Amino acid sequence: MKHNFGAGPGILPHEVLKQAAAAVVDFNGIGLSILEISHRSPEFEAVLDEAVKLVKELFSVPEGYSVLFLQGGASTQFAMVPYNLLPEGGKAAYLESGVWANKAIKEVKYFGEAQVVATAKEANFTYIPKDFEIPADAAYFHITSNNTIYGTQLHKFFPSPVPVVCDMSSDIFSRKVNVADFGLIYAGAQKNMGPAGVTLVIVKDEILGKSGRKIPSMFNYQTQIEGGSMYNTPPVFAIYVSMLTLNWLKSKGGVEAIEKENEAKAKVLYDEIDRNPLFKGVCVPEDRSIMNVCFVTENPELEKPFLKLCDEKGIVGIKGHRSAGGFRASIYNALPITSVYVLIDAMREFAENNK
Amino acid sequence: MKHNFGAGPGILPHEVLKQAAAAVVDFNGIGLSILEISHRSPEFEAVLDEAVKLVKELFSVPEGYSVLFLQGGASTQFAMVPYNLLPEGGKAAYLESGVWANKAIKEVKYFGEAQVVATAKEANFTYIPKDFEIPADAAYFHITSNNTIYGTQLHKFFPSPVPVVCDMSSDIFSRKVNVADFGLIYAGAQKNMGPAGVTLVIVKDEILGKSGRKIPSMFNYQTQIEGGSMYNTPPVFAIYVSMLTLNWLKSKGGVEAIEKENEAKAKVLYDEIDRNPLFKGVCVPEDRSIMNVCFVTENPELEKPFLKLCDEKGIVGIKGHRSAGGFRASIYNALPITSVYVLIDAMREFAENNK
Repeated sequence: MKHNFGAGPGILPHEVLKQAAAAVVDFNGIGLSILEISHRSPEFEAVLDEAVKLVKELFSVPEGYSVLFLQGGASTQFAMVPYNLLPEGGKAAYLESGVWANKAIKEVKYFGEAQVVATAKEANFTYIPKDFEIPADAAYFHITSNNTIYGTQLHKFFPSPVPVVCDMSSDIFSRKVNVADFGLIYAGAQKNMGPAGVTLVIVKDEILGKSGRKIPSMFNYQTQIEGGSMYNTPPVFAIYVSMLTLNWLKSKGGVEAIEKENEAKAKVLYDEIDRNPLFKGVCVPEDRSIMNVCFVTENPELEKPFLKLCDEKGIVGIKGHRSAGGFRASIYNALPITSVYVLIDAMREFAENNK
Repeated sequence: MKHNFGAGPGILPHEVLKQAAAAVVDFNGIGLSILEISHRSPEFEAVLDEAVKLVKELFSVPEGYSVLFLQGGASTQFAMVPYNLLPEGGKAAYLESGVWANKAIKEVKYFGEAQVVATAKEANFTYIPKDFEIPADAAYFHITSNNTIYGTQLHKFFPSPVPVVCDMSSDIFSRKVNVADFGLIYAGAQKNMGPAGVTLVIVKDEILGKSGRKIPSMFNYQTQIEGGSMYNTPPVFAIYVSMLTLNWLKSKGGVEAIEKENEAKAKVLYDEIDRNPLFKGVCVPEDRSIMNVCFVTENPELEKPFLKLCDEKGIVGIKGHRSAGGFRASIYNALPITSVYVLIDAMREFAENNK
């Protein structure tokens, strides 16, 4: 039994994996694998419809928004967002709260100007900047709701005079959000929603079609909306597993229920970090993420021995990102609190042995 | 037992499906699913390396070419090709041999001009135009090697004064090709190579970087080459299943061996179509595809009864594309000749019963 704290592609519910494996051999008893059926078959159309329905239900998506399942990951969205929303010669506002925000900003230059309203770069992205103004003449305001690498999270969103575009890759469906506050939400599936290979986009229809750009079909949200995420062959299996995962989330009581669990998991872990003399948190407490818990040892020589202990206890994926160092425990929706307790026990045992 | 003649996502080898299903529960005995491991883990890096190696080996890819596994399907390549290869104000030559070629041509307008050197549109794409000149001032010459919808195939490629770009989505790895004759080859995996959700690109490095365009990272072949197909999180599972399928192909004797099998399968089926008084082929014999065999009934009222008979015999996916009508038997690499014989028997039985 492994305890999967990996940052992504991350842990998926055991029952989802079992269902997915069965469907790879024989999908719903039709005598064919989910991997070898037409995306235009009634069987797959039902999967896609159900996935869209579950997103709308779990996130209370209001009227006037479209739900898309695309390919290419959040990194493709870094370009598609300005391609669709930024007029020639226009500017967009970006909050540089982490490494992924920084990457998103870099892609804007191909389309226009990115105005960085605030950055936490000087502090190694260990806090969320909150004191800034959003220019009213920006085409949109882009934020990253959770910073996977350094472990900060926006616990409140900012009122904005322009449409808010949010990269929710690493905390989508981990907590309630008010979709109506956003113009566009996107998320690579591979943390809380499904396997790598599919990207969720929730877009307010009325913000589209205003940039005046001619956009190639595949990069154009409008084409994808008109094609119902099937302008071309979609990533069938990744959508299927996402549907199963969303269904699992619904059976757990939905986003409100999982939010309570996620908060409880984060609290016990941060409490241990703050209590344990060998470890300390990386980020300012008020901006700590409930998804990616980053911490370090006071004594860097203890890093390897602690990773070794974790390994012995079946704790995997705990090593910090190569650009951040230390440790990172990603405690996504599917990670049970029992795994968090195993980690806490390991931290205590380690402190006991290294007094 | 089903006989899967679907046009794509199409049939995959049974042993590949069994291995893939096992890996969804526990990948190589590591106690984690292939769906929940990091793409930067040594386990997945080995998968990707192996997949690239198999492509190079099976297709005898010469030095100076890069092999990429991308997302977005061939439809994304329709835009990425001109984005990367066509200078501002430049033109590219296209052979309009089918519906997919036509779609590729439509995407060029976002980047420059597509000069259609020849078209078979007036004959409903039932033949391959062969009498044309490729302009020496084109940035590249684009062809589609196999036309899935109407069932024609290029049995010879054209000598070209400019780099040849080829969409091989529906016949990749079905026959030997000389990669050195091409500047760029692309193929959605979901016919002969794997499941939907990954696209193979084989590109000659020296044709890149000449368009003078600034290209967003994800749409830039150079970025993808530098990232080793991992500029961002790749579609892990789709690449894994492609690796398994390529490995299966190698164990079958590689492309040369499968080409003989494919020719044998196509021959017996076309022979039956030509012999059977109730059916006739759609395309001119010399351009008939060995992957997608399109045929019709002389009497359209017999369509439904024949589909019903097929259904009773476990023959699935035989209905023609909605824009072509009639029947289409896709006989991809993984389809055993025994399934073709089942179809032939059904055709004979049907003719017998409808004398």
